Amino acid sequence: MTQPGSVGIVAPQRARFTEPLPLRSGGRLDEYELVYETYGQLNAARDNAVLVCHALSGSHHVAGTYADQPDNLGWWDNLIGPGKPLDTRKFFVIGVNNLGGCHGSSGPSALNPATGRRWGADFPFVTVEDWVDAQARLMDQLGIERLAAVVGGSLGGMQALSWTLQYPERVRHAAVIASAPKLSAQNIAFNEVARQAILTDPDFHSGHYYDHGVVPARGLKLARMVGHITYLSDDSMGEKFGRSLRHGKAVYSYDVEFEIESYLRYQGDKFAGFFDANTYLLTTKALDYYDPAFAHGGDLAQALAVASARFLVVSFTTDWRFAPERSREIVYALLHNQRAVSYAEIDCPAGHDSFLLDDPRYHGVLGAWFDRIEVR
Amino acid sequence: MTQPGSVGIVAPQRARFTEPLPLRSGGRLDEYELVYETYGQLNAARDNAVLVCHALSGSHHVAGTYADQPDNLGWWDNLIGPGKPLDTRKFFVIGVNNLGGCHGSSGPSALNPATGRRWGADFPFVTVEDWVDAQARLMDQLGIERLAAVVGGSLGGMQALSWTLQYPERVRHAAVIASAPKLSAQNIAFNEVARQAILTDPDFHSGHYYDHGVVPARGLKLARMVGHITYLSDDSMGEKFGRSLRHGKAVYSYDVEFEIESYLRYQGDKFAGFFDANTYLLTTKALDYYDPAFAHGGDLAQALAVASARFLVVSFTTDWRFAPERSREIVYALLHNQRAVSYAEIDCPAGHDSFLLDDPRYHGVLGAWFDRIEVR
Repeated sequence: MTQPGSVGIVAPQRARFTEPLPLRSGGRLDEYELVYETYGQLNAARDNAVLVCHALSGSHHVAGTYADQPDNLGWWDNLIGPGKPLDTRKFFVIGVNNLGGCHGSSGPSALNPATGRRWGADFPFVTVEDWVDAQARLMDQLGIERLAAVVGGSLGGMQALSWTLQYPERVRHAAVIASAPKLSAQNIAFNEVARQAILTDPDFHSGHYYDHGVVPARGLKLARMVGHITYLSDDSMGEKFGRSLRHGKAVYSYDVEFEIESYLRYQGDKFAGFFDANTYLLTTKALDYYDPAFAHGGDLAQALAVASARFLVVSFTTDWRFAPERSREIVYALLHNQRAVSYAEIDCPAGHDSFLLDDPRYHGVLGAWFDRIEVR
Repeated sequence: MTQPGSVGIVAPQRARFTEPLPLRSGGRLDEYELVYETYGQLNAARDNAVLVCHALSGSHHVAGTYADQPDNLGWWDNLIGPGKPLDTRKFFVIGVNNLGGCHGSSGPSALNPATGRRWGADFPFVTVEDWVDAQARLMDQLGIERLAAVVGGSLGGMQALSWTLQYPERVRHAAVIASAPKLSAQNIAFNEVARQAILTDPDFHSGHYYDHGVVPARGLKLARMVGHITYLSDDSMGEKFGRSLRHGKAVYSYDVEFEIESYLRYQGDKFAGFFDANTYLLTTKALDYYDPAFAHGGDLAQALAVASARFLVVSFTTDWRFAPERSREIVYALLHNQRAVSYAEIDCPAGHDSFLLDDPRYHGVLGAWFDRIEVR
């Protein structure tokens, strides 16, 4: 057994779709593109593909680095690679940037083929279900009829869950990590604050800021700051920053005094420097709307009856954004339907962000689960 | 026994101070004014006075209504009045708007006597300790040498605690409700998001927006929205609003869709319509700075050794802003010093805001505690 390694240098690929995609909002995309990456080899039986779905700020760049950006590590690189829990010697792993994203797939910051100008606010609302539809078409292009597994954390977990409901016959296993069957009022409230920060930024220009040569950086920074608070646990924030004062004492200023302020501003500025505000808006709405039980009068068990995949559900004790109770709702609904589901509640101090970390128990659970998936 | 009643129509009073007040920030106020209200009668022994300290958005208007504003009920009117837990037939109750406030006391939106213009950003930073100093001088003016009790919730609880440390001989009893001995990193983080929302609002004009005929309403609205989320519990927000959609279904718009969005925007707009942004900034900094244990190497028991008051500490099970653990820190530190302390952890679903509500167990505990306070 060799040491777990990296998938190495990777390169994004681009798929083009010309068959119109109907959207849940009532609109449609006549044509669109998806950027994706793959790691490992699709086997001859074409039965070893694992789709990785990304969360709010993720992308198709899930593992490895780029030749010209050696420090640009994929966001789940600790999980994916030869000898890692999601082992690329066994699996063909696919990462895809969702529709409406800002990392190369068709989205508000991309050109609208109908006008030759950037979509901006004219890009249609997209839902988790729309994303899954688009991902399924990408699987068609790649010649993958049935996924060995679909896996995702947070909003990515919602996509994994939705795959098992929209295309039950096309997904053998699903890992739903640090996720929820729908947002709570508090979750929506945080998203709404983030949206209001962006929408009321004078540089937002009704979503057509590209045409004005500006970006609503103030709003996007605030949105990220408030989001970031919900990704960490109170305890982990306390352990990491506590009440440490940059100058050792109060200096009575609105500049950075407490280290936590410095951290949040840095995270906000960094994010505002590369992420698209319209994508942030669209993505928070996709989160808000997701509620597979809605069409079943709120009965999640009824909504999940159609699923046939074998599930792994993982939650983290200190995650207060999507607390373990929310994962258990999914587990109970699956058990009600006598579906195969393993559930792990990991005692990790890092809050919602735990799903991105490599806690050994967490990765142990994932590794064992992927190991048991049969491929030819 | 008559039905509990109202203190009726009240009128604010104004006290003027011309002896300079040194501030913890190193600055000082050469002269200043405090607006206050009183309910009940100071007895001949002058030993029945209870000072009520307000939290972030409170004021001196604690009970009763105004003759010209019959709907403007004091913020703790459910607690204070004849026959109520804090019974004005027995006690002389005082509410005071803190320094730096925006309800009539000297603050950023008041005139700077030195310039004849509004203070704006030139108003000095004030701390919990400064507020208590100013309140003590008001007690001097009112001829109250020793308070029967000082009481406050949240930031008001910090002032009550600070009274017992700064003027231990002047306060017989202290009620510290839904409070904490200091903010956590997460608490500071939320405050910092609120401040950045205000500070980066183009209408802020470095705090001198009064001179520009504008107010940073967008920033203040966002600040209030994010604050409001932390005042409610996840469960109470869920019960109150859930995922109710205004139009019964998703309409794919950034206008209000979920009822929780409507509520938050309404709360934000209302607040931005009457509260001063500079006061909000100053007050969040006062919260962040408060840490009586800091001068004692973080040893809260050592910091509280000087206190001699009899304490009541109250927390609420669903309060995640200042969780019961934070109140227990105060209780343990007092017990370590063998001080008299009663502690009640109230199982109330409403989160941090519970301290403003009239949960019968909560008011029962308060009423019994006030009943036991001896006055001549």
